[in-house]
Amino acid sequence: MKVISKSEILSMIEMDKIILSQEEAFVAHSEGQVVTPPVGHLSFSNPPGDCHIKYGMINGDDTFLVKIAQSFYDNPKIGLPSSNGLMMTFSAKTGAPVALLNDEGYLTDLRTAVAGLIAAKYLAVMPIKSIGIIGTGTQARLQLQLLKHITNCLEVYVWGRSQENAMSFKSEMTKFGFNINIAQSPKVVAENCDLIITTTPSKQPILQADWIRPGTHITAVGADATGKQELDSQIFAKADIRIVDSISQCVDHGDSKYAIDAGIINENDLIELGQIIKNPAIRRKNNQQISIADLTGIIAQDIQIAKCFIKNYSC
Amino acid sequence: MKVISKSEILSMIEMDKIILSQEEAFVAHSEGQVVTPPVGHLSFSNPPGDCHIKYGMINGDDTFLVKIAQSFYDNPKIGLPSSNGLMMTFSAKTGAPVALLNDEGYLTDLRTAVAGLIAAKYLAVMPIKSIGIIGTGTQARLQLQLLKHITNCLEVYVWGRSQENAMSFKSEMTKFGFNINIAQSPKVVAENCDLIITTTPSKQPILQADWIRPGTHITAVGADATGKQELDSQIFAKADIRIVDSISQCVDHGDSKYAIDAGIINENDLIELGQIIKNPAIRRKNNQQISIADLTGIIAQDIQIAKCFIKNYSC
Repeated sequence: MKVISKSEILSMIEMDKIILSQEEAFVAHSEGQVVTPPVGHLSFSNPPGDCHIKYGMINGDDTFLVKIAQSFYDNPKIGLPSSNGLMMTFSAKTGAPVALLNDEGYLTDLRTAVAGLIAAKYLAVMPIKSIGIIGTGTQARLQLQLLKHITNCLEVYVWGRSQENAMSFKSEMTKFGFNINIAQSPKVVAENCDLIITTTPSKQPILQADWIRPGTHITAVGADATGKQELDSQIFAKADIRIVDSISQCVDHGDSKYAIDAGIINENDLIELGQIIKNPAIRRKNNQQISIADLTGIIAQDIQIAKCFIKNYSC
Repeated sequence: MKVISKSEILSMIEMDKIILSQEEAFVAHSEGQVVTPPVGHLSFSNPPGDCHIKYGMINGDDTFLVKIAQSFYDNPKIGLPSSNGLMMTFSAKTGAPVALLNDEGYLTDLRTAVAGLIAAKYLAVMPIKSIGIIGTGTQARLQLQLLKHITNCLEVYVWGRSQENAMSFKSEMTKFGFNINIAQSPKVVAENCDLIITTTPSKQPILQADWIRPGTHITAVGADATGKQELDSQIFAKADIRIVDSISQCVDHGDSKYAIDAGIINENDLIELGQIIKNPAIRRKNNQQISIADLTGIIAQDIQIAKCFIKNYSC
């Protein structure tokens, strides 16, 4: 069993291949080719923490995946990141362990950001004039950086609850060539941007429907568990195209669930990202439509990104 | 994250500590101190295989465990063992990976055999005069070897479906000083032995109630999944003491389930091994009673055995 460290993983990244491989993940999911058993969960109280155990395989693959993702919320108090994680691949022919990717949660961050990139690629009005980022953490930074693969736009509005974190975001992202405007409210972001990405752990809506202008695409990646919500449910009424990574998962949690529970939309109003990738006919029809992508994270993304780091696998 | 190979594990074994630690596992389970979420499962068809993902923790422990156990039934055709597996421990304080025990399934075999030893220690009539083993595989051999920790008995009757495997069992076990009699039927084993251990993948009863003599203790470890059965359910009627590792698990699968489903016993007739270890008053009352231990394997055993191989942990 090969053990691959985070630093080795960082040295092996080929973004073009990863993006293609992640598009395949969404398509495989939407075509029913992904075995996705229920997620395992352990909860900790002292100190507070969660461990999620996800596993699955894509039909026809030579390997299957087990991913363990840990979040211990008091870790920052002792100088540790709150999130950690690893992925393991096993042979689907013999069960033998193939590789342990000790990525410390990085590959989950990366595949989440790549999903944002893919959603923007297929749904945003091009050329993008101004990018809005709600949230200032690791995922916010990664989402913005990766957008360089699909747009030359460098104009950015960012909003976060903490002014200090927003300053730190600005300082770091400026080095990548972006012109970062720190917005005083999420409304300012909505008023100035045609692509908005929300990446917060919020439990209340941050973006209000009234603020959203025609031609806006919003990708929400924060609501990855029950109780989390970033979008005013009325945005689902206002939107023309409502994308999710997994319909079955997004009726259980994610921003879509709140809109469904409120009777604003129903399950049939949702389209999976994999369908959008495969079928140009169901994408945006004009530059005035509003689109949303509610991304909660699916095992197919993990399976596909792990495969990119197994030697001799061409992803 | 420390990665410990099977050969390193084999060099670190301290059986007395492991036995004590496994007794603690059963007690912790019976005292409700073990977090045992549902087992995860992936099924494979071409070639046929199963992967079980078990995880949990004992309240108050510094670590939690994730175990992955793979069975690929055609592996022997290509010279590989059908079973494989690994265990991982993580900090229950920060979520950080502590150690990966790449034991290839050995620790599961070992903890299962230690459970047999513990059941015999608390339930068999001492001194044991003759040991019966039903089954001739890896687990049968390990069960017999470990019994040396609780008995000087060297007289053994073995039965297996394959005469060739029985011969191989005899040849190997003779080297450990046992006098191995190859029985022509399970009945011969029952007629000659006061401790019987069944370790087969059988889906039909192998041991019949009529054959079981007063003073016999039977430990059944084969029925670890739905559909497997080694004991005629009437043995549960005949038995005075009916032990299981986990009542909640044994009403779901294991030999006990068949006896419950047939209305021969009910859940209240079962006692957990952890209770027997803690409470001498509920053990065997005399040398004529018949006892059964139906052991299906519990996460507490895995948690405890993994802890024995983490440096600085005194198990």
